[in-house]
Amino acid sequence: MEKISLNPIGIVHSPFKEPVGVPKDSTDGMDYQGTIEIFSEYRDGLKDLDGFSHILVLFYFHKSEYSHLIVKPYLDDHLRGVFATRSPHRPNFIGLSVVELLEIDGGILHIKGIDMIEGTPILDIKPYIPEFDSNEGIRIGWLEGKI
Amino acid sequence: MEKISLNPIGIVHSPFKEPVGVPKDSTDGMDYQGTIEIFSEYRDGLKDLDGFSHILVLFYFHKSEYSHLIVKPYLDDHLRGVFATRSPHRPNFIGLSVVELLEIDGGILHIKGIDMIEGTPILDIKPYIPEFDSNEGIRIGWLEGKI
Repeated sequence: MEKISLNPIGIVHSPFKEPVGVPKDSTDGMDYQGTIEIFSEYRDGLKDLDGFSHILVLFYFHKSEYSHLIVKPYLDDHLRGVFATRSPHRPNFIGLSVVELLEIDGGILHIKGIDMIEGTPILDIKPYIPEFDSNEGIRIGWLEGKI
Repeated sequence: MEKISLNPIGIVHSPFKEPVGVPKDSTDGMDYQGTIEIFSEYRDGLKDLDGFSHILVLFYFHKSEYSHLIVKPYLDDHLRGVFATRSPHRPNFIGLSVVELLEIDGGILHIKGIDMIEGTPILDIKPYIPEFDSNEGIRIGWLEGKI
């Protein structure tokens, strides 16, 4: 199958400058704020986004240098399949976080719950819609009892 | 910023062969089942995924041929910024669905709630974790009252 090529639409400005010490997920980082700078050529696409309290942020783990199919997640002592984890060392270095959208100022999104580091390239922003993105009757496998 | 290059890890087999008639989201498509075939070289990464009832599927809108910053979403008569919608005609053609994982058979994921068409390239699979991916006190902007 052909390779897929993407262009970043923006960049993260974060209190976290390096992967060490960064919150492991947006819940862990819920007290931390940062910004997403959307590049000028994409800003018209932000219209109406300010009505949403939360957004889905798709980003690129630009500090990942390798991928493994089996990883030891930070919440566990066992080796797990990478697709059963949120490890950054995955076949495609795509990350996903749900963050609170505090304010949009021009092309700058002020967010809360940041778990991305400074300079992270942004691939997409989508509105968080509970009817689409949330479910009941959930089982969470190896994570049960750990979060 | 540099382009980002990704390799699909799998492909969708769907009852929907063309974009016309495909469910608009995984809630709309909740009665429909299909499969995701993970390519053999990535299958070791599926270990432990069967403990999760729902998964996040990141895919490529391979039938999208253009992107717009302003779109008219299917649930509305007004023009909206593309990042405030789930339109496939976005700057990077990445789609995201939460689907129910029924069974894993070798490298084949049997899923329910499919809103992807036949041949859709898969970029990533992540476990759906309510603590990370779900929130309370949500506002949904222009979608309020429409879903």
